[in-house]
Order: sequence, then structure tokens, then C-alpha cells
Amino acid sequence: MKVSLVQLNYTIGDFEGNSGKIIRGIEKAKKQGADLVLFSELSVTGYYPHDLLEKKEFIRRAEETVAQIAQHCNGIAALVGAPRVNENERGKKLFNSAFFLADGKIQSIHNKTLLPTYDIFDEYRHFEPNREFSIVEYKGERIAITICEDLWDELPTANEFGKDKLYSVSPLEELSKLDPNFVVNLSASPFSYNQESWRKDVLVSKAKKYHLPILYCNQVGAQTELIFDGGSVLIDREGEIVKELKYFEEDSLLVDTNHLGEKQLQAETGYIEKIHDALVLGIRDYFGKMGFKQATLGLSGGIDSAVVAVLAVRALGAENVRVLLMPSKYSSVHSVEDARVLAENLGTRYDIVHIQKAVDAFETEMAPLFEGCAPDVTEENIQARVRGIFVMAISNKFGHILLNTTNKSESAVGYGTLYGDMNGGLAVLGDVYKMDVYKLSRLINKDREIIPENTIIKPPSAELRPDQKDTDSLPEYEDLDQMLFNYIELNKSPREIAALGFDEEIVRRVIRMVNMNEYKRFQAAPILRVSSKAFGFGRRMPLVARY
Amino acid sequence: MKVSLVQLNYTIGDFEGNSGKIIRGIEKAKKQGADLVLFSELSVTGYYPHDLLEKKEFIRRAEETVAQIAQHCNGIAALVGAPRVNENERGKKLFNSAFFLADGKIQSIHNKTLLPTYDIFDEYRHFEPNREFSIVEYKGERIAITICEDLWDELPTANEFGKDKLYSVSPLEELSKLDPNFVVNLSASPFSYNQESWRKDVLVSKAKKYHLPILYCNQVGAQTELIFDGGSVLIDREGEIVKELKYFEEDSLLVDTNHLGEKQLQAETGYIEKIHDALVLGIRDYFGKMGFKQATLGLSGGIDSAVVAVLAVRALGAENVRVLLMPSKYSSVHSVEDARVLAENLGTRYDIVHIQKAVDAFETEMAPLFEGCAPDVTEENIQARVRGIFVMAISNKFGHILLNTTNKSESAVGYGTLYGDMNGGLAVLGDVYKMDVYKLSRLINKDREIIPENTIIKPPSAELRPDQKDTDSLPEYEDLDQMLFNYIELNKSPREIAALGFDEEIVRRVIRMVNMNEYKRFQAAPILRVSSKAFGFGRRMPLVARY
Repeated sequence: MKVSLVQLNYTIGDFEGNSGKIIRGIEKAKKQGADLVLFSELSVTGYYPHDLLEKKEFIRRAEETVAQIAQHCNGIAALVGAPRVNENERGKKLFNSAFFLADGKIQSIHNKTLLPTYDIFDEYRHFEPNREFSIVEYKGERIAITICEDLWDELPTANEFGKDKLYSVSPLEELSKLDPNFVVNLSASPFSYNQESWRKDVLVSKAKKYHLPILYCNQVGAQTELIFDGGSVLIDREGEIVKELKYFEEDSLLVDTNHLGEKQLQAETGYIEKIHDALVLGIRDYFGKMGFKQATLGLSGGIDSAVVAVLAVRALGAENVRVLLMPSKYSSVHSVEDARVLAENLGTRYDIVHIQKAVDAFETEMAPLFEGCAPDVTEENIQARVRGIFVMAISNKFGHILLNTTNKSESAVGYGTLYGDMNGGLAVLGDVYKMDVYKLSRLINKDREIIPENTIIKPPSAELRPDQKDTDSLPEYEDLDQMLFNYIELNKSPREIAALGFDEEIVRRVIRMVNMNEYKRFQAAPILRVSSKAFGFGRRMPLVARY
Repeated sequence: MKVSLVQLNYTIGDFEGNSGKIIRGIEKAKKQGADLVLFSELSVTGYYPHDLLEKKEFIRRAEETVAQIAQHCNGIAALVGAPRVNENERGKKLFNSAFFLADGKIQSIHNKTLLPTYDIFDEYRHFEPNREFSIVEYKGERIAITICEDLWDELPTANEFGKDKLYSVSPLEELSKLDPNFVVNLSASPFSYNQESWRKDVLVSKAKKYHLPILYCNQVGAQTELIFDGGSVLIDREGEIVKELKYFEEDSLLVDTNHLGEKQLQAETGYIEKIHDALVLGIRDYFGKMGFKQATLGLSGGIDSAVVAVLAVRALGAENVRVLLMPSKYSSVHSVEDARVLAENLGTRYDIVHIQKAVDAFETEMAPLFEGCAPDVTEENIQARVRGIFVMAISNKFGHILLNTTNKSESAVGYGTLYGDMNGGLAVLGDVYKMDVYKLSRLINKDREIIPENTIIKPPSAELRPDQKDTDSLPEYEDLDQMLFNYIELNKSPREIAALGFDEEIVRRVIRMVNMNEYKRFQAAPILRVSSKAFGFGRRMPLVARY
């Protein structure tokens, strides 16, 4: 059977836009002689609509859209994903379904069995699990239809306290009893650099175990924090990956399930390249889908804002990025110069504003109230917040979205000022540890020096008081990042982390900083997620707790 | 059987503090001659620990604590709530359990069957549902043990698209077959003014249906956004509420399941009184459990900040509240005077700072960049953000938590400045519509004028430009609040809302404002929840969507 895998970038709730893309995909596949076109999970609504699923009107629109798409399925069949109402008396009010469309109509509907409800996934919040299994027969082929997690009844776990069998049913075990010729999977599986190989491992192991080819079609594109990387594949019954679609781009491919042909794989890239590409797509889609074109950010001369500026220019174009240099009396001699050189290398507009007069206005007005108090973090925060007002003024006046430049290491330990440098519509590096920010800078400078070398090699500093260095109050980033990764991604205890070769007192101090700063992260900008555990929606910690 | 209902205020993760309270409850009940003491759901950890449940160390501490509490159960039995590891090969790694403790040991463990996973509840994220039912036999009585939602297999729904039977099992149906003498329920059911009667209705209907007395023990106290109201009850087999514990306070009561005795109920209060008491408890516990004592806020002369100041004083004491008056050239003549009178009525420290010089410093510095641009919302936001810096400076310098004064109507339509008046550690009125803020002010002034009458009667204004009124850009609050309630709480469509008697174009414009401002609310302070649908954790909307 000739099947077209169509990997598209959907906008949540954009029924017209999404169905337009789907219908064009069907028409193109038909011209190519496909029998069946495969789209991704919840393709009609975009993944994931969250509580829009609680709106009757939203579900009605989804149903109508599926019916419209069906009318375009003549001489060709299609599998699209959409929610549907559970008509049974009991259970959650929706199913997460795959609609098999042919001869201008919905021929059958197949519901998702395994509903991920962990990390960033909330599917049991909205959906009832499937309990009945059936096969589609079409043009002499028996097709087993699965939706994303349905193949993941055995999960790899990064954390030893995790469970590898979260579910009591194995959909493919049930479907394999019905003697299918091949398996299709409609997927919406987000990118994370440290879990990315698991996905292929699971698909390969399932193909081998059941001796069945698997056609896997993933969503591509960013939905606020989540970045879907595409990379749809066809795996043969021996577990070999035979075809692989592009990463971080829309793509489609016609395959013949009975003549798989030559291997067509994507070039292997390193994890920093993948993070780079993911972040560029994350910025581009956040702006594009919000209906915005232009970004602004403050350029400090430090590495975080430098990397964000480069990624922003790659996502939006130099003409759409405008940076602000905001030196204070504590800014080092090089900082402004480094920032200026970077802006010139990138060809972005830059302006310099001086924060001192505004800072002075606050300090003068507060002086009677602060009489007898020593300077402390209050004055440092005023500087950061004054800068926050300047960049937000650019954002408001010219309709630019402010990009936040906080990295994951800082965000973890609360090294940043609420309503100051924590401002922004999107946190580009919020899921990238400092050491990986350095690696990104080296990747960016691979062919020529875009980011001034001095920005990369100078010791990190917030420059909020004379001669301040990050390492005055934090361990070296090499060590800090390892402690944080083991605590945040791997959920290890302080004792277990110390056993990796760190001083237990320092580990406990770092972890206390992580726990005490939940209140700051609660109000942080949405973070582009590139790891298996990003701050934000996928990590839900009580704000008020004694632990 | 003599049973003591012990309704306590727990701190999440405070194993020592919580077990200390529980053990004191056991010892007191023993002195009173109780056979059994009943605590609330997850009493050992506090409800709800969220992803702390993913930490092995946290679960180990919970297990140890239960074992320690068991040692205090000699000559008396107790039911406490805690998570435990699911030792089965498949399924989520934990159960949400009730531990029956007697003779110094854990005698039996009973797992929760129905795991709420909607609105603010995330239980299926962490827990595997129970599938086996058993009864505890103790001192000749047969006790059916249930945990919170277990009695809610039939839910009332406010929204017609909601489902009233979310689950496929009825735990009480199963347990009633085992011939119990009475039912106990360990609960953690948060307050919401418009669902509060449902709880009693469910308990009453279950007692009647199965002709069984129900002893219901609820948690009390606030956990960041969620406010648990207590109000534990004993209901007889005819469905009469015979005993009722206090609301918004710790309380305990010894009852005899065979001689229920006289009715002891709490006085009925109106919904505004309940919201008032909930908010006071919400502020008090946020501070107390965070280890903070003192609050600050900006007092504008308007009604929202006035009501917050009063609630803060009631929660923390006048000596722990410090307010800042921050007039600008657009402040009305009365505003400063009203704010000053309120501060004096309350006996709180107040200071006046003038924002104009700081505002001017920004405008001067930005002038070359803004050349040729008309004044717009940018300049209004600068004022709001300058005030935000001033109050945060007080917060930083003196260790006060800033209280946010945004109400639910404003939050809904995005009427507020990010990093300006949206600042704060806790949003006191974020779940209270403007018309209810007025009602709160009338309740506060019931006996004497605390809030100046002028603050209550003047037309609402942000005072960010000359003669600005909220109704310049918004419908009258009477109408706006109704539109919002029908959209947010009831999930109605624009057409359905217009059918209540509003102009459909205006309804659509209001709903567009709600949808377009998800990005602002994403970065808002945690909101004390008093309704069935608050902004925040219980309402999860995609930020980037076209709907």
C-alpha cells in the first residue's frame, strides 16, 4: 500500500488553517498516487489544546472540520487526529481519536488507549481511555491504528524511582492478535535532547517484538514551550529505520509498505545543534503563531543575551530584532563594546540608554525611608528593574515581544530579579544550562566570530555591584550544572548527588536555593523546553512547603 | 463506637510539624475516651504535594512518619492519609492511601479509587487507582474507608457540557456490599463559594442511598492558592447532618456512632462572609507557612487596594502591614486623602513617595527613541512599573511580601500592567469579581466606616491619564462580571452569553480580551481561589492559539 507520511506544523485552535494544510496534503498525496495519507495526533486542533477541550463550541468546530476534510477523501483515504465526544454514560467526556476517512466520509474512529499524564502531559484530564481494539481493512491491507503513547506501554525511565510500566494494557499486544499487516502511529511527541533516542528505541523494539512495520507520523513546530521536532519514520518488521523525515521542518514522504526501497535517513547531528535548531524554531513559531514579527532584548555584553540575540536573528531576521544596551556605573569597560560589536555583526538596530538617572530618582525618593539601612540586594534589584522598564517601553511602543535571556542554571537557583531581568514574553534559554549556553556560543562562532570572544571568555557577572562575579555566591558552573541536572532531571537526593564527588553541604545549599525559588519561577516567562524536565508546566512544585 | 474527628491545618512536606499535630490529636482523643481518631486525606504530607511525590526521599519520609505515628496508637486506633509505593509491576508508582493504625502498628492500608484529575486536581499524575475493596473490623464495628473523591462518583456539573459520571466505578456501591456499620471519609476538599453546597448534597445523598452514617473529616487551611475550609461533618443514615465542625479553623469533635445525640451545626453565613474568611485565612497561611510575617502594598485610594489592606490587617495585624501611597499628576484630589484616611483607620504605617521624578527620568532617556511617537499605553505602563519598583524596594529592603490587588474582572480582561501593578507574591482578590469586591467593602464597613465611603462610591479608574475611567474601555462592571462568570465559570459560548441579554458584539469583544491576555496571566502572582474556576493552576489554556 502506498502511504504518504505528512508531517505538518499546526496552530492550536486554528481549524481553518489546520484543515487547509491537511486538505492540501491529501490533494498532493493523491496526485502522487497514494492510497492513504497519515497525519499526526490531534492534527485538526493542534496538540495540545488544554482546557479549550472543555468548550463545547471547540469540540463542535473540531467535529465539523473532520467532516469537511472527509469530503476531500475520494479515491484516497486519510487518518487525521481530533477529539470526539464520549457518548457512554460514564467516563471523561472526550476521546482522543484517529478518524479513518475514505469515500468522502468518516469510515471508522479509533480512540487512544494510553493517556500520558505526567511531566508536560495532561491527557487524562480531558480524555477517557479506549478499551476496545479493532483493525481497519482497506484495499486488502489490515492496518493497526495507534496514537502516540499507545506504543509506549513500556517506558524507559531516567530516574530510578520512575516506573517503566505505567499502564496495565498494551495496545499493540491487543492489536497484534487481530493480524495486521502494518502499524500506523499518529504522534505528537515533543523534542527533548536527552530523551530523543528513546523514541526511536521504543519504535524499533515494538517493530521487532511484533514483527510488524511501523509508520510513525509526528507533529512538527512549537506550541509555546513545547517544540515538536518531526522526524517521522518508517521502520521495517526487523526493526530497521528505513525512512526518516526532516527535523524541525514540515516534510512529507510517499512510501510503499510492500516495497520499502532504499534507506533515506537524515544526517546525524550533535545535541547542541539540535538544541540550536529547536530554539530557533521555538522563537519563530511563538512569534508567527502569536501574529508578531519583531523582538527586542537587552544586550549586556554577557553570553546569555548574546546567544539569544543570535538565535532571534536566525529565527526572525536581523531587521526584526532591536536591541537595547543599558550600561550602568558597574558595567565593565568591555561590556558595552562587546554588545555593540555583536549588534553590528548581526546587523540589528541597537540603541544605548543610560540607567543611572532613573536609578538615582528611585534612590533619592526612597532615601528617607531607607535611612540607616545598608545597601543590599534592594539596590541591585532596582537597577535590574529599571532596565526591565526600558526594554518593556520599547516592547510597548513598537509592538516588539521582549525576549528573556535567563538560563536554566540561573533560573534554578533564583539568580535573577523578578520584574527586572526576569521580564519577557518568552524565555529562550530557560531550559539550557550555562555550560550548554557556552557550547551554543561556540557553535554559533564555528565559521566566524559573531559573538565577540571576550563575551565568551570573561567570568560571568550580573554587574550589579563593583567586581561582582557569579562565583561569589555560586559554585563554578561546571559543578553547579551537574548538581542541578541530577536534582532536576534525575530527581536524585542530596546524598546521592554528593556521592558523585561534591561537598554535601554545598549540594544541600544549592538544592535549598532551587526549592526556595519556586515563587520566582511561578511568575517567570514561558520557557522553550529542550530537556526531559524543564521548569514550567512539566514540573509542578508546591510554592509553600517545608521540604 | 466513639470517633474523634480531627480537622487540622497541615504544611506540605513538614513531616515533623504535621506528625506532631496528629500525635497530639491522638493523645487528646485518647484522654477523651475515643476508640478511633479520623484525620484528613494525605494528612501526613499535607494536601497537595504535587511533584514532591516524584522524589523517593519524600515518599520514604512519609512512610517513616506513618510508622512513628502508629507507635502512638495504643488503646486507640487512627486513620491517617499518606502516599505509598505501588509494589505491583504495572501502573503509576504510588497509591493515595488511608492507613489504619492500631496496637502500635499499621493494621491495614486502603487506597483511593477515584482520582480527581480536572480543574485544580492532578491526582492521576501521581497515583494508581484502587481496584479492591475491603472493610476494617475494629471493636465489633465494620468500617468502610473512603478517601475524598471516592464518594463523588456522581458529580454535579455547573456546565452543561460537563459530565456527571466521570468514573466507571462507585466505591461506596462496592463497599456497601460488605455490610459496613458506617462510612468514614478522609478528605481534602478546597473551598469555593459557588460549589460549597454541593459537598453537603453529595454526602447527604450517599448517606441516604446506602442508609449508612458518614463521618467526613476535611483538611483546613490554605496551601498557596487553595483554601481548605474544614467544616467536617457527621451525617446520619437518614441523611441528616447531625454534627458540623468549624469553618476556616482547626477543630475537633468526639462523636458516638451509636448515639449521635443533639444536632450541633455551625451558624449559616452568606457567601461574601465566607469569601472574606477564606481570604483572611489564605493570607495568614501563605505568610505563616512561608515563614514571613509582614506585608506591604500600594494604596491607590481605590477600592481594590483598600479591601486588600483591610484583609491583610485582619490576617497579619496592623503592625505587620506597611502601605505605600504613590500619587502621580493624574491622581485625583481625593485619592491620596482616601488612602491616608484608610491607613489611619487601620493603624498601619504608611509612607508617601512621589513617582513623577522617576517617570520623568524614563521619559527623558527614551525621548530620542520615541521621537515622533504619540503617547500611548507605553507611558501609562511606565507609571505603573515605576510604582512596582517602589513597592518591591520596600519588599526587598524590609522583608515584606508584596500583596497584589488585582481583581478577577481586571485579570480576566488584561486590565493591568505586567511588572507594574501585576507585581506581588500573592494575589488576594484575583478570584473575586469587581462587584463582589464592592460587597466585601460593604461587609467591612458594616459596623463602622473603615474604608472611606468616597473610595466605594467613586467611579473606578486606573488614574494613568487625565479623567480616565474603567468604563471608557470596558462595559459597566455589573454587565462585565456576568459575561465573565458565564464564560469562565460556566464555559458558555458568546452566543449563549449574548442570549442572557447582552449585545453579542460586546460579548465577543470581552471574550477576545480574555483569550488574548493568557500571556499576562501566565506571569501573574498566585491567586487565592474562592470560586469553582480561578485563573491559575485550575484553568490551563494554551498561550499561543488562534481561537
